[in-house]
Amino acid sequence: MKYELYYWPSIQGRGEFIRLALEEGAADYVDVARLPKSKGGGAEAVSRILEDAGEGRMPFAPPVLKAGKLLVSQTANILLYLGPRLRLVPKAEAARLWAHQLQLTLADLVVEAHDTHHPIAGSLYYEDQKLEALRRAQNFRALRLPKFLGYFERVLAAHPGGDRWLIGKALTYVDLSMFQVIAGLCYAFPRAMSGMPRKHPRLAVLHQRVQERPRIKTYLASSRRIPFNEHGIFRHYPELDEA
Amino acid sequence: MKYELYYWPSIQGRGEFIRLALEEGAADYVDVARLPKSKGGGAEAVSRILEDAGEGRMPFAPPVLKAGKLLVSQTANILLYLGPRLRLVPKAEAARLWAHQLQLTLADLVVEAHDTHHPIAGSLYYEDQKLEALRRAQNFRALRLPKFLGYFERVLAAHPGGDRWLIGKALTYVDLSMFQVIAGLCYAFPRAMSGMPRKHPRLAVLHQRVQERPRIKTYLASSRRIPFNEHGIFRHYPELDEA
Repeated sequence: MKYELYYWPSIQGRGEFIRLALEEGAADYVDVARLPKSKGGGAEAVSRILEDAGEGRMPFAPPVLKAGKLLVSQTANILLYLGPRLRLVPKAEAARLWAHQLQLTLADLVVEAHDTHHPIAGSLYYEDQKLEALRRAQNFRALRLPKFLGYFERVLAAHPGGDRWLIGKALTYVDLSMFQVIAGLCYAFPRAMSGMPRKHPRLAVLHQRVQERPRIKTYLASSRRIPFNEHGIFRHYPELDEA
Repeated sequence: MKYELYYWPSIQGRGEFIRLALEEGAADYVDVARLPKSKGGGAEAVSRILEDAGEGRMPFAPPVLKAGKLLVSQTANILLYLGPRLRLVPKAEAARLWAHQLQLTLADLVVEAHDTHHPIAGSLYYEDQKLEALRRAQNFRALRLPKFLGYFERVLAAHPGGDRWLIGKALTYVDLSMFQVIAGLCYAFPRAMSGMPRKHPRLAVLHQRVQERPRIKTYLASSRRIPFNEHGIFRHYPELDEA
């Protein structure tokens, strides 16, 4: 199967969770919007797919994955679909539900990380909601971040198969997403995250382990990996980090 | 299968999406926290299940569904699990992915509806973030609400099987969730929602159609349906509604 990914070409954003799965799964895929415009790329490719109702099943927002005639959107839903096909999740239903549950909890964390810089509206500039952002980011760092990271650390610690991976005995798409979330948080909140190796040692090691997977290492060093920037989910605004 | 639902006993909240599916599916279930304390009920029942790591697969937050030894959490994930078992979703994989995709989009809308009254932090009182709430609610009513409702209206209009249900030819758990979201929005924002029958006629009819399903009608009239209140996701604070 040849996959087509439709996502904004200038940010990691939610598309990055899909890109990491496609890369680690050695999938045959095209990141369509990153093609030159002459080959159908650019942000217009994303707009086009959002308007394509394909049998009435139009996406609400990117990322969108096209697999033959099938259009799948919502990040966690795309990973639910890709997981078994790219051998990035165990076969048993209970394990798949558990993987999806963790993925949805990561998605909740991603929304909250995003809302630290956009607590009022995605349609307004950061500068127009900076006071509110300072308040929300303070609460996020003090309460929400430790709660989420503490939870995932406990999941690793309690895993009967050991703390090497979050689920089962091999890497899954959830480990890839966990890596991405930690990478993003370290980019956005370097001071708040500086204590992670001490406070959440298993997560720190997991992040490193994923980063060193041969395919992920190659991907991260390639031009396919868009650098973090201040247009995506994880933004480095020093005033939102710890003092 | 006998199901146990664990969710806060005093609010509809996210648990309500599960309650509606269990009711329409005529499932054999217990809403554990709503039992008397002498029978293991009360909010303590929810706290207990959150601490129960059951084979290392602890939930992050309620609702939690217990099915035999299996614990499932994250609202959309529970519906993914229950859907086929309660015959509330078609059999084909493509239709199930589409149902889940719509459910996740409804979940996004639910987060945004919640954050109108808690834009800074869930740990703070509404009164302590009221100014920010006024700003966020204004943006939600002006931009986000029409965007989401317009999307679901278009999904109904574009459905090749007709606009009777969102997916396939029969009611699914997504229709139940759509009903609940509209009911909640009408409770929280009666003035902003007053134009719905005109602006989103298909959604208005869907809401009515679900409400009149015999099992749902019985449920809504029973004491099992907790009334909307100002502790849940959808809260009626008149100052957050249209002037």
